[in-house]
Amino acid sequence: MNAEILSVGTELLLGNTINTNAAWLGNELAACGVGCYYQSVVGDNAGRLAECLKLALSRADMVITTGGLGPTYDDLTKETVAVCMGVTMELHQPSLDKMKAFFTRSGRPFSKSNEKQAYMPVGAIVFDNDRGTAPGLALEKDGKIVVMLPGPPREMTAMFDNHVRPFLEARSSLVFRSRFIHLFGIGESAVEDMLHDYMLSRSNPSVAPYAKLGEVMLRVTASAPDEAAAEALMAPVVDDILAFFPEHVYGVDAGDMQTALIRALIAAKRTIAVAESCTGGMIAARLTDVPGASAALLCGVCAYANQSKIDFLGVRPETIATHGAVSEACALEMARGIRQRAGADIGLATTGIAGPGGGSPDKPVGLVYVALSSTKHEEARQLQLGRGRADERHSIRNSACLHAMSLALKSL
Amino acid sequence: MNAEILSVGTELLLGNTINTNAAWLGNELAACGVGCYYQSVVGDNAGRLAECLKLALSRADMVITTGGLGPTYDDLTKETVAVCMGVTMELHQPSLDKMKAFFTRSGRPFSKSNEKQAYMPVGAIVFDNDRGTAPGLALEKDGKIVVMLPGPPREMTAMFDNHVRPFLEARSSLVFRSRFIHLFGIGESAVEDMLHDYMLSRSNPSVAPYAKLGEVMLRVTASAPDEAAAEALMAPVVDDILAFFPEHVYGVDAGDMQTALIRALIAAKRTIAVAESCTGGMIAARLTDVPGASAALLCGVCAYANQSKIDFLGVRPETIATHGAVSEACALEMARGIRQRAGADIGLATTGIAGPGGGSPDKPVGLVYVALSSTKHEEARQLQLGRGRADERHSIRNSACLHAMSLALKSL
Repeated sequence: MNAEILSVGTELLLGNTINTNAAWLGNELAACGVGCYYQSVVGDNAGRLAECLKLALSRADMVITTGGLGPTYDDLTKETVAVCMGVTMELHQPSLDKMKAFFTRSGRPFSKSNEKQAYMPVGAIVFDNDRGTAPGLALEKDGKIVVMLPGPPREMTAMFDNHVRPFLEARSSLVFRSRFIHLFGIGESAVEDMLHDYMLSRSNPSVAPYAKLGEVMLRVTASAPDEAAAEALMAPVVDDILAFFPEHVYGVDAGDMQTALIRALIAAKRTIAVAESCTGGMIAARLTDVPGASAALLCGVCAYANQSKIDFLGVRPETIATHGAVSEACALEMARGIRQRAGADIGLATTGIAGPGGGSPDKPVGLVYVALSSTKHEEARQLQLGRGRADERHSIRNSACLHAMSLALKSL
Repeated sequence: MNAEILSVGTELLLGNTINTNAAWLGNELAACGVGCYYQSVVGDNAGRLAECLKLALSRADMVITTGGLGPTYDDLTKETVAVCMGVTMELHQPSLDKMKAFFTRSGRPFSKSNEKQAYMPVGAIVFDNDRGTAPGLALEKDGKIVVMLPGPPREMTAMFDNHVRPFLEARSSLVFRSRFIHLFGIGESAVEDMLHDYMLSRSNPSVAPYAKLGEVMLRVTASAPDEAAAEALMAPVVDDILAFFPEHVYGVDAGDMQTALIRALIAAKRTIAVAESCTGGMIAARLTDVPGASAALLCGVCAYANQSKIDFLGVRPETIATHGAVSEACALEMARGIRQRAGADIGLATTGIAGPGGGSPDKPVGLVYVALSSTKHEEARQLQLGRGRADERHSIRNSACLHAMSLALKSL
């Protein structure tokens, strides 16, 4: 089966909204074994929407639309699909009842314009919207399927997970399952080079690399008659990949580095505190983005000014005078200082030059030290994260965060 | 003139890469007065690319492609466009010379495969790539134009700014200029309601709202024979909008709230220090994202655990025992404590319940206090930022950051 993604919304054409929905759906369809050769975006205009829809239906077995299911006059997707497929619309009473109950619960008056969202093409399969008011739907005719999903990403993704994936699986004798292997400290091209023959030698499970800013993610996807069989197919491949990259894998199905680190700290019953200069709070912000982080993270200090390194972390003024604030010695004292002052098991520190200003021939932009201190062990690393370009501040800071968190993960 | 955006790359179809290029270009084209009714995405496949290109050329005066200009065998854009437009390819010696010099400078060997990037359709206008090796180009024939830009966003955006916008302006007797007005503390729909008649009553300059997470941005765009005339057209409209929303505008052409705050602090010669509980380092991370932030930001403390609020900020244990860590009293002591300990002019603090856990009937998820302390003035605000959904942790934290920074901006 192959599918096409058709995103509907003038805000996408104007660049007011970035089309994350298409990327998310492309990823999910690939993981379901559905091929996808085209994506299109069209505005809230019935004529152009109909034209795009007809073209997509001529090329694909299935078209997945996002957007245009809401209550206003320029939400046209259902109506236009119904016309294109030669189907009339009718009131879907269960959807109307749910919508009215939703409004009652949230204490808002039900306005007549919302009724539009409960009218469906005759014969459609209706998908409940667990996170909003507009239901989704699938309409099948003459061997073609149109799946219509709401535009807001949080509604769209939940509806896909809860209704569309089961709908696709029910039409197939196979289920598709994926596992994600997270690597750090190795580039995407190096991963591809090492895995090239291995990836080509197998199709089920398939192995595909996904670039993430500063790290690499491999997706292993298996199709099988049931979930247990899919898991059994994937297990040896995941083991193979772990054996390929023993130094670089930091997690399997870990989400991201901060989640992996918080989980590992909680499992090891250890606490952490962070002292950040060049990353300026990014590590703390990422760790606290993980729900339940408070079980492992005690505190963070963004010691941006030299005096704050002395006052808040106990860095010795002589260390800064002799070695400078961007030095291994300063990084180690920052890590030790935050550990001791916070009463944490592990202290983690960053200091460096994120640019674009502040570099010198001795200490160029991109020079970063990360350091870790525990009662048993202290360690620092010198990194050169820049390539001398003017716009690297964000990537240098991001990379410094990842290196520091990786150092902490490896110590556990 | 109207244009269509055609993004080329299998990684876009697979969802490995989010198509930020199309949104960025959509936005820029709108600001240049170029209409855009369709966007398409196609993989690295010559046949399908040719098909999409022909369709786009049949609908639009100009097609802008991104991607497929690199050195590898699956980079097919130039070659496919040349075939579709009936033009042969030839070596463009200046591009080859520049490319070789680029490799020499960066100390890398020049591999033969790179030469492909210097072959251009006969008659093309070549655009230098200031941030990479693949040049861009424009090819015009039979009243249609194809502009081909590289895929990496940092290369694409620089090439558009430096070469494509001037190319578009040279074909028109008008220049287009925009100004951006940043609002906080008012919703997009309220802004639209208030400005509805005003927006409809004028077309030059045009006024368009852009949603940003937690805030609103208005773009004012004028077309005029020259830049000075465009600026003169925009000035009274900007003044009108400032008068419409005196309470809510935090900046004009300010970039974002953190940039506005750092600029205002530097202009006022004041320093700031931040103490964060629920935002956990996000304010510090955002402020340090602004190049040159060290002139205004002294330090930040992410005081996640109660003990760290006591140890690092001097919050009194009785305050936490009596009022709880999520309280106005605690927020004020945090702001005062970080100001005094950092020796800053302004102390800023956040404490709240970001969820999904940790809420209670008295103190539900989304309850946040932000506080500011200076030698002359102390102030705290109680906010309810959640709506009781399970996935609001990020939006609550983002909103808390914006409220805190807004409080600091208003105090200046």
